[in-house]
Order: sequence, then structure tokens, then C-alpha cells
Amino acid sequence: MGAGRGEGEGAVEEEATGYEVGIVVPKLSRGAAAGPAEDCVARLVRELEGAGLLVERVRGVPAEFIKLAAPMGTLGRAAAEMQMKKLTYIGMELQFEWDQVAAFVRQPDGSLFSWRERYCCFRYLIYGIVNKTNSEITLKFDDKEFHWKQNESLLTRLESEGVVKLVFPLHDEIKRKQLLRNWALNWLDFTWQPIDDIYSYFGTKIATYFAFLGMYTQWLFFPAFFGLATQFIDFGSLQWLVLPAFFIFVISWAVFFLQFWKRKNSALLARWGINCSLSEYKNMGNELNSFGDSLTIEEKKFDDVSAEKRKLQRNEWFGVLLRIRNNAIIVLAIICLQLPFELAYAHLYEITETEVMRYLLTAIYLVAIQYYTRIGGKVSVNLIKYENNQGEESSSASLVYKVFGLYFMQSYIGLFYHASLYRDILALRQVLIQRLIVSQVLENLIENSIPYLKYSYKKYIAVHKKKHERESPSGKSVRLSTRVEKEYLKPSYTASIGAELEDGLFDDFLELTLQFGMIMMFACAFPLIFCFAALNNATEIRADALKLLVMLRRPVPRAAATIGAWLNIFQFLVVMAICTNCLLLVCLYDAEGNWRIEPGLAAILIMEHALLLIKFGFSHFVPEEPAWVKANRVRYVAQAQIVCSKQLLKSISKLDAKLD
Amino acid sequence: MGAGRGEGEGAVEEEATGYEVGIVVPKLSRGAAAGPAEDCVARLVRELEGAGLLVERVRGVPAEFIKLAAPMGTLGRAAAEMQMKKLTYIGMELQFEWDQVAAFVRQPDGSLFSWRERYCCFRYLIYGIVNKTNSEITLKFDDKEFHWKQNESLLTRLESEGVVKLVFPLHDEIKRKQLLRNWALNWLDFTWQPIDDIYSYFGTKIATYFAFLGMYTQWLFFPAFFGLATQFIDFGSLQWLVLPAFFIFVISWAVFFLQFWKRKNSALLARWGINCSLSEYKNMGNELNSFGDSLTIEEKKFDDVSAEKRKLQRNEWFGVLLRIRNNAIIVLAIICLQLPFELAYAHLYEITETEVMRYLLTAIYLVAIQYYTRIGGKVSVNLIKYENNQGEESSSASLVYKVFGLYFMQSYIGLFYHASLYRDILALRQVLIQRLIVSQVLENLIENSIPYLKYSYKKYIAVHKKKHERESPSGKSVRLSTRVEKEYLKPSYTASIGAELEDGLFDDFLELTLQFGMIMMFACAFPLIFCFAALNNATEIRADALKLLVMLRRPVPRAAATIGAWLNIFQFLVVMAICTNCLLLVCLYDAEGNWRIEPGLAAILIMEHALLLIKFGFSHFVPEEPAWVKANRVRYVAQAQIVCSKQLLKSISKLDAKLD
Repeated sequence: MGAGRGEGEGAVEEEATGYEVGIVVPKLSRGAAAGPAEDCVARLVRELEGAGLLVERVRGVPAEFIKLAAPMGTLGRAAAEMQMKKLTYIGMELQFEWDQVAAFVRQPDGSLFSWRERYCCFRYLIYGIVNKTNSEITLKFDDKEFHWKQNESLLTRLESEGVVKLVFPLHDEIKRKQLLRNWALNWLDFTWQPIDDIYSYFGTKIATYFAFLGMYTQWLFFPAFFGLATQFIDFGSLQWLVLPAFFIFVISWAVFFLQFWKRKNSALLARWGINCSLSEYKNMGNELNSFGDSLTIEEKKFDDVSAEKRKLQRNEWFGVLLRIRNNAIIVLAIICLQLPFELAYAHLYEITETEVMRYLLTAIYLVAIQYYTRIGGKVSVNLIKYENNQGEESSSASLVYKVFGLYFMQSYIGLFYHASLYRDILALRQVLIQRLIVSQVLENLIENSIPYLKYSYKKYIAVHKKKHERESPSGKSVRLSTRVEKEYLKPSYTASIGAELEDGLFDDFLELTLQFGMIMMFACAFPLIFCFAALNNATEIRADALKLLVMLRRPVPRAAATIGAWLNIFQFLVVMAICTNCLLLVCLYDAEGNWRIEPGLAAILIMEHALLLIKFGFSHFVPEEPAWVKANRVRYVAQAQIVCSKQLLKSISKLDAKLD
Repeated sequence: MGAGRGEGEGAVEEEATGYEVGIVVPKLSRGAAAGPAEDCVARLVRELEGAGLLVERVRGVPAEFIKLAAPMGTLGRAAAEMQMKKLTYIGMELQFEWDQVAAFVRQPDGSLFSWRERYCCFRYLIYGIVNKTNSEITLKFDDKEFHWKQNESLLTRLESEGVVKLVFPLHDEIKRKQLLRNWALNWLDFTWQPIDDIYSYFGTKIATYFAFLGMYTQWLFFPAFFGLATQFIDFGSLQWLVLPAFFIFVISWAVFFLQFWKRKNSALLARWGINCSLSEYKNMGNELNSFGDSLTIEEKKFDDVSAEKRKLQRNEWFGVLLRIRNNAIIVLAIICLQLPFELAYAHLYEITETEVMRYLLTAIYLVAIQYYTRIGGKVSVNLIKYENNQGEESSSASLVYKVFGLYFMQSYIGLFYHASLYRDILALRQVLIQRLIVSQVLENLIENSIPYLKYSYKKYIAVHKKKHERESPSGKSVRLSTRVEKEYLKPSYTASIGAELEDGLFDDFLELTLQFGMIMMFACAFPLIFCFAALNNATEIRADALKLLVMLRRPVPRAAATIGAWLNIFQFLVVMAICTNCLLLVCLYDAEGNWRIEPGLAAILIMEHALLLIKFGFSHFVPEEPAWVKANRVRYVAQAQIVCSKQLLKSISKLDAKLD
């Protein structure tokens, strides 16, 4: 299976994908009585075959599995029916047409559709099976009967009846093994990664994460080296210059790194056939979605332009107000609820004297913050529902900002407390090392062991149940024999917070961001910290790769092809780092307290930094382009594309032939 | 004349522009002997008529004038020959074709071509007159004979022979009078301006300037009002809070103003049929130009993609290095040459005691800075020539940054000196008022009187010469009777520095920016300053309008439709204002010197601000998108447009018909 995959150059019409999607249904109780009603699973399989899919049924231990593959032709027709937009060689995205296939840009590996596009087509085909007859159809399951209404999706019906337990993407064994060998277990060249292969197997979002992680790790070796140098070389009379120099170096390093990451991201976009610049890409999703929403209204009263403009303006400002309100709620919650709590913990921890009490305190704290972050996440998700964010990726960016606020407080306030309490670099260093090692090592352990434990538990349950059912007296061992049932039992790649908006990348990015914040904000206190981070990230690449390839179900591909909101958070952390390191330097060189920072001066400095933040943060709130201008701009393009599509395609095909 | 102008809705094929371009040739000495060679001016007129232009010859006092108008058909054919790109209703820019005219977006006033497009067509037609015969043609002028070679442009030849003195755009008397009435002399509603009319008369760049000036003036009334309030209301015990509150208000005001200006600029772009977002627009010009340059090379070795990528990368980084070197030269020159000079002047001015010496010193200083800025401008222009800036607007932005550096030092260093010398708010206020009133009033006077004086002098010379020639014993007065000769004698709208890259808007924007810097950076020292600025700008709108409509020749239209580099300078000034106002507040509230700013603390604060500046300024140096990605992206689009053009146009025409 998967052997007939489009790895060649030209598209052969008859090539098919591997078995890439699985449907889980319960195992039929043996020998169901034949009645007037048809068995619903049999009907589902017939309908799937009727839709042009290749079906394989596998009986596993916990359930029965329907594995689906699709010939290229079926996918192509589905894409055309879905009116999927696809990049053409003129750089415009046009509706896909199966007979003009030469006009569309191919993937780097030569296949026509990317993994995400294939998955979309699969879902469209599966959920598009509706009752086209004029009457209800009676289906039965296990002895229960139910009615499949007219124009109802069969799969939705079966899901609500509890027959279909899950629809999930399947691993492609050949490609998975290949990636495992070349990537996760490739220990020699430890920052190199086969990004293009990752892209074609996992999609843009995960590939972007690993590209970022890889580049970040490579770049980390520079400050790690300098950090080592500052620690182990004696600079003699110039020793006092070392830390400021390191500070300046680290900040410049971060600025360069983030800018060059943007360039690398542009290059990746170009390589993956997303033919637009980074800033355009960021806006693209929003536009198309918002256009889709407004099109239906627009078409009705096309002539009334000024009323439409007014409506769009009202919507835009209402959205801005909502966003401001939601952010105010989150900020207030963080300052009024979380800040006192964190400070109370840090303070209590300091004043308690017996070790037992400290452990008890930490245990209570850990339980409490678990609940706190979970509640915070739920509140954020609920708030976001009321924002009129445009598109899934915009909502998830909004979630990222809100939840990062929580974690920022949680991770750093203790450190700030210690830094300000002791005004002692050595004590701060100790806390830093504790935090970094504990958090990173523990998190890596948890991250990788919890999925495995979950999987083992599920497997045990399934096998145990089976044994119980059979009541085999011979004690014949029951084993999970097929790959698909193992995959079914593996946990999925979901976020710990706001799972409906984000996938597991959320946690991975959060970990990376908190690490970046820690090493940057306290760079002057402990230059050696960069070494820890570099080593940690080098293992992180492999650990995350193994997790994705071995521990988890294949994740559902997502559309994002930039690191989105996280980039802004990284940039925010650089600004924070400038301020905190300055404070640290003042503390370091002002051991006698000679340079007085009186309340007046402190107030003015705080005010200055707040204003600087507003100055550079304001443009994130109010977009540069009014919504009605955007709508105007997109309208013509979309309408023209609908009308001209056919003709354009022919000429593009000719162009394509000319270019080859 | 100008009556047949396209003010209606539909384009009538036979409508013509007004007389919009003038050519200046010497008056023929009376009764030239008829010889074998043809008179060159007569030939020029014949050729111009042959090119489809409407020609009117006017004999004036100083010279003879050839006024040109064009029927729409001639302009359209010229545009098609030039392969002018024009926006279509699908939002793509396509090559203009005269028979598919319905596909192209019309101007807000209903005419097909904007003023800039018309002027480009005129120039193309005029300079496109070449000798198409197989032999040289002998032409004579006044008695001198010269040869018009094969395939040589007649106008270039005549210019080099000194026959054609000038080709310049003519005012359109009807529209000019209309604008004068509605705009320059409309004193009632003093911030309202007919932006669309300004656009269709002067083009995008000047209209954008006036839109910005108008909005800036409107917004200035808010801080002006608050400034008045702080000055004349007694807040009692809360008096100490007034200045910090004003500071915060002013900074927020500036941030909002700049963001809303961007939105307004987007809206203007949309109204003028420039159908893309602000950030796209900023890149657009560069892309198309760089594409044009690289196309010739690319086509030769289209297959060698990686070599091309390497070449583009090398060019890009070479460009970045050059830009860094040039900026370093300018910064060093400013710090090492200008700073000591300015400080020396400020110091000498303080220590001299007699008034006479002070005047002398100021006179010497004024002469010296005239030379200094002129030399600085020349150096900048020469440096820019070696940068591989893409497109005229990019070079002029580079010039703006460099020259602004000079003026920034020149305008503010004296103020800083006074502020730090006295640490006394009242003295600073006095200096501020002096500077603002003197500079603004003097500049307005000079700006408006110099053109008039120049014009009067030229007129006098012309008339005097004429009288001399005639030697009229009766003393019969010679008058300039035609409009065109008056316009010819008026000065043109050029920049004081780098005239080859910038037009007169450079000086107007510079004045505006220096004013903005002064009122923002010293806002806390003197809140009332906003009132002066608001009043000054309200008169500035009318003064600039009068200057353009009455004092000067009609300016050559330029492509830019944003305020470009100036926006970045405004944003830089806001950051500077945050820092300087903080300093001022520290000085104000620390009258006893209690909050010690020791060298260590000061050094760290300076370092912090420098790093913040780097953080936010770095992205201006290194673009986010690598050059080769950009080239790849644009290549397909351009090639497709060439191939698909015809077919696209037909379908767009149909679409257009459908939409109407």
C-alpha cells in the first residue's frame, strides 16, 4: 500500500494515494439475522466504493476498521466539486478543474495535491454521501434500526447513532519508516532535517515548526559559545565589560535571528508553492474568509455601496471594541487574580522553614495552577467565540496571546520576585538552573511518557476486554496484529488548552517560547544558560519527531504556514529582555546602591517603557487597511475569477506548455 | 481650450485633452531665407501633427511656444505602444489595448487616463519622433544647418542644438481657476480640501501631501485645545499631574494619528483605482522594476536556476553592505563634522555678550549651514547613485533619510544644548517660540516670495530685452500677453536638495517633519506650542495651494501615492519624543537634583534605548523576503500576463459588461 503514490514526475491518471484515512466502526456481533433492513456498515462500505474510493476492511481486536484510499481521478473530481482554489502558474489561485490539470502548480515531490488538500478531499467525499433517493432508507445496526433521511449525510447520521466512532488520518508506513530513519533517528547531523519530506507528510504547519526549531537550535550555538567563553575565560581588567558586551551581543543575536527567520519562512513558502510574500500571506486567509461571509449579503444589494461601507465600518469597529474588552478582561484577571497568588506562593515558599512544608506548598501550588490555567484556557476560548475573528488561524492566534499571558506570569513572576528580593546574582542563578532543568527535563519526560502510558493503558483495556469476551480457557494470548488498530489506540496530537482551536503544536511552541523568554530575560544573570538551551533543543528536535512518528496518531493537517502569533511573542520577549537585562545590570553594578532609583525616576522610566510598548504594539490592534477597502479589493478579483476561470485556464495551460 | 476634456461618463472616441504640454523654441529672426534645408521648427510642428497631436503655435515676447493637445485615440495608441500597464476590473494590471478599453478602470472623474498617464503618453509621443527615412535630413535653424540622423529622436537633437529650450506641462486654465476658487481661496471651511480634484489635476503625490497636511492639521486641534487648557486652567493640588498627563495624551495622539493616516491612505489608494493594500503598494514599484532589469539576463539562461539564485543573493547582500556603508558615512559626517560645529555655534552664541557680535555670528552660521546642507545633499545624491536602489521612489526615500539626518541635527541640537545648559523650562520655552515663529514665518515668507521675485525678475529681463531689441523710440510698453509665456517664466517646483531625485514636495515635507519633531519632542516644556503649529498649518495649506496654482509652473506628475519615507521619520520622531519628554519630566520634577542620574545608570539607559532603536529599526535594513523569492514570484506573473493578456482582456470585457 502506498506504493502507487505520486513520486514520479508526471501525473499518471490512474495512480492512487495510499490508505490515508481510517473509519472506526464496532465489530458486528456474529451472524446478524438477515432482515428487510440493510446493515449500516455494509451500506457505508458500498456507498464509499460508489463514491470512487478504494476500501479495505480490517477486523481488529477493539473494533473494525475501514481503510480508504483514492485514485487521483476521484480526488481531482472531488476538488473540482469543492471548488478548491489552487495555485496556478500565473500566481493566481483559481478553481481547480480536472481537465486543466496542467495549469496547476505541483508539489515539490511531484504530486498534484498536498497532504492537506488530499485530506480535505477525503473528508468531502466521506461526508458527502447523502441519501439521494426520494424516500427514507431504513438501516440497521446490531438489531437496532434507524432511518437515513433524505439528503442527510450518512456519516453524520452514523456518528450521531454511535456507529462510527472516529474518522482519522492514517500513517503511511513506507514514508513513516523513511522519516524515522532519516530524521528522528538520524543522530549524526543533529540539526539537519528533511523539511520537504516533513512537509509532504505532515503539512505546512508542522513542517514550519520543525524548520523554526531547527534554525533556532543552530543559531543558539553562537550565544552558547559566547556564554561558555564569558564563564571560563578571565578577561582581567576588562572583566566589568564582559556582561554588558554579552547583553548587547545577545540582543543583536535575537534581532538578527528573528529577521532571518522571516526570510527563511518566505523561502519555505516559495518552495511549497505558496506564491506570495510573507506579509501578503498573513492577510490572505482573512480576506478570503471575510469575503465569503460578506458575498451573500453583497450580492443582494449590490447597488447600495455606501450602506455596505457603513456596515463594514460598523462591524470592524465593533470587532475592535470586543477585542479590546476581551483583552482587558484577561489582563485584569492576570493582574488581580494570578499575580497575588503567584507572589503569595513565592513569599510563602521563602518564609516556610521545614522542607516538608515546602513540598506540601509546592504540591498545592502545582495543583492550583493546573486548575487555574485550565480555567483560564476555557475562559479565553469562550471569549474568543464572541470576537469576530476571521478564520481558524486568526482565532487560534487570539488564543495564543491570551494563554501566553497566563503562562508568562506563571513562569516568570517567581523569578522576578527572587531577583528583586535577593538582588543577588548567585541566588538568581540557582533558581534559574532549577527552573530550567526541572521544567525542561520534566516536560520532556511528561510529554513523551504520557502518550505512551495512555497508549499502553488503552491497549491493555482492549486486549483484556477481548480476553474476557472470549473467555478463552487455553489462555491463548490476544495480540494487536494490524497497524491500523494500534494507530487507533494511540492518542491524538491535541493541545492541552483550547483543543478546538489548536493542535499539539500549541504546547510545543509554548515550551519553546517560555524557554526563549527565560534565557533572554536573564541572559546577563547567567550566560551559561544558553548552553543548556542549545543542548535541550537539540534533543527536543528528535523527541518531538519521535513523538509525532511513533507515539501519536497522524495529525490532521492544518493550513498555517507561518509561526503566526508566536513570532510576535518572540519579538515582545526581546523587548522585555532589553528592559530586564538593563535592570539586572543596574543591580549588578550598583551593589552599594549608589545610583538611587528614586520613586519619581522609576515612575517616569516605567511610563516611558509603557508608552514605547503602546507605540509599537498599537498597530496590532487596528489594521492598516479599513475593512471596506479590503472588501472592495477582493470583490472584483473573486468575481472575475469565477467568470474568467475557464478561459484563463486554457491560456495558462498553453503558457505552461511553453515554459516546459 | 480644455473644454473638450473627458468630464463625461462614457469615453467619446473623439474627445481630446486640453493643451497640456508646451515646447519652448526661440523666435525666428524675421524672414529667414528659403534654402534647400527645411526650417527645423516648422519640421517639428509638421512631425508633431503627423504623430496625431493637436498643435497651436503662440508667439510670445521671450520665445515662441508650441502648445500640444491630444485626441483620446492618439493617447490610447501611444499607451498601447508603450505597453503601459493599467489596472483592469479584475485587479490585475494588464497591458493597455485600445480596442479593449472597457476592461480598464476609469478615473474618479470618468476619464480614461490619469494626468500622470497622459503626461507619460505625451512625452512618449514627443520624444518618439524619429527619422524614419533612409538618409540624414538636413534641417536649419536661423541660418545654422545641422543633420537629423537616422533613427534619432528629433526632440533630443533639437535640445542638444539648443533649439528646444524646455518641454513643460501647461496649466489647464479652467481647472486651475476652479481649484483656486474652491481650494486655495476657500477660507470658510479651512481644513476641507477637494482631494479628488487635486488628484486629477496634480497627480497622486501632491494630492497625498495635501491629504496628509489636511488630516494633520485637523488632528492638531485636539492637542492644541489641551495645550490651551493646561496653560490657562488652574488644576489646584493636581497641578503636578498635568504635564505627565499631557505627555501621555500627546504620545497616544501621535500614535493614533499615524495609524489612522495609514488607513486614510489606503482609502485614498482605493478611491484612485490603485487596487492593492498599503504594504503591497510599497513593494510593488520595486518588484516591477527589478524584474525588468533581471528579465534580460534571466531569459538567456532560464534553465540555470541555482546560479541565478546565487547571483540574486549576492546582489542583495552587496546592496545591503553598500547601504550600510553609505549610512555609516553620513552618520559619521553628521557626528564628527556637524555636531561640533553646531555645538560651537550654540556655545559661542551664549558666551558673546554684545548684540552686534551675536548678529555677526548668526550671519556667519546661516551662511555656513547653507553650504553645509548643500554639500551634504550633493554627497548624499552621489552616494545614492552607487546604491542599487530599485526605482526612482526608492532612491528618493534613501535621500530623504540621509538629508533628514542633517536637518535633524541642525534644527534640534541647539535646542538640546539650551535644554541641557539651563535645565530651565522658561528659557527653553523662549528659545522654542523664537525658533518656531522665526523658522515658520520666515520660511513661509521665503517660500512664497522667492518664486514671485524670480518670476518678476525673469519677466523684467524678458520685457527689457524685447524693448532693447525694438529700440522703440515711442516708449510703447511691451507686455506679456499670453498665458503660456507667463507660465514659462515661472519657476518650477523643485527641491532645494537633490533636485534630480525629488520635487518641491521634499521641502514642504521637510518643513512639516521638522515642525512635528519640535512640537512633539518638547511637548512637556511648552504645551501651548501645539496652538502655534495648528494655526501655522491652517495657513500652510492655503499658502502651498496658492504657490502651486499661482506661483509655479504646473509640476511634473510623479508616481508615488504614499508619503513614503516621511512616515517612517514621523514614527522615529514619536520614539524620540518619548525619550526627550521623559528627560524633560525628570528635569522638571527633579529641580533639587535629588534623583541622581549617575554615569553608570545613564550609560545603561542610553544603551537600552539604542538597543530598542536597533530592535525596531533593523527590519528597515534587511527586507523580509529574499530577492530571489521575489524574483521567482514576479516572473510567472509577468510572463503569464504577456501571454494571456489578449484572452484575459476579452473575458474581462464581458465581465465588465455584466457588472454594469
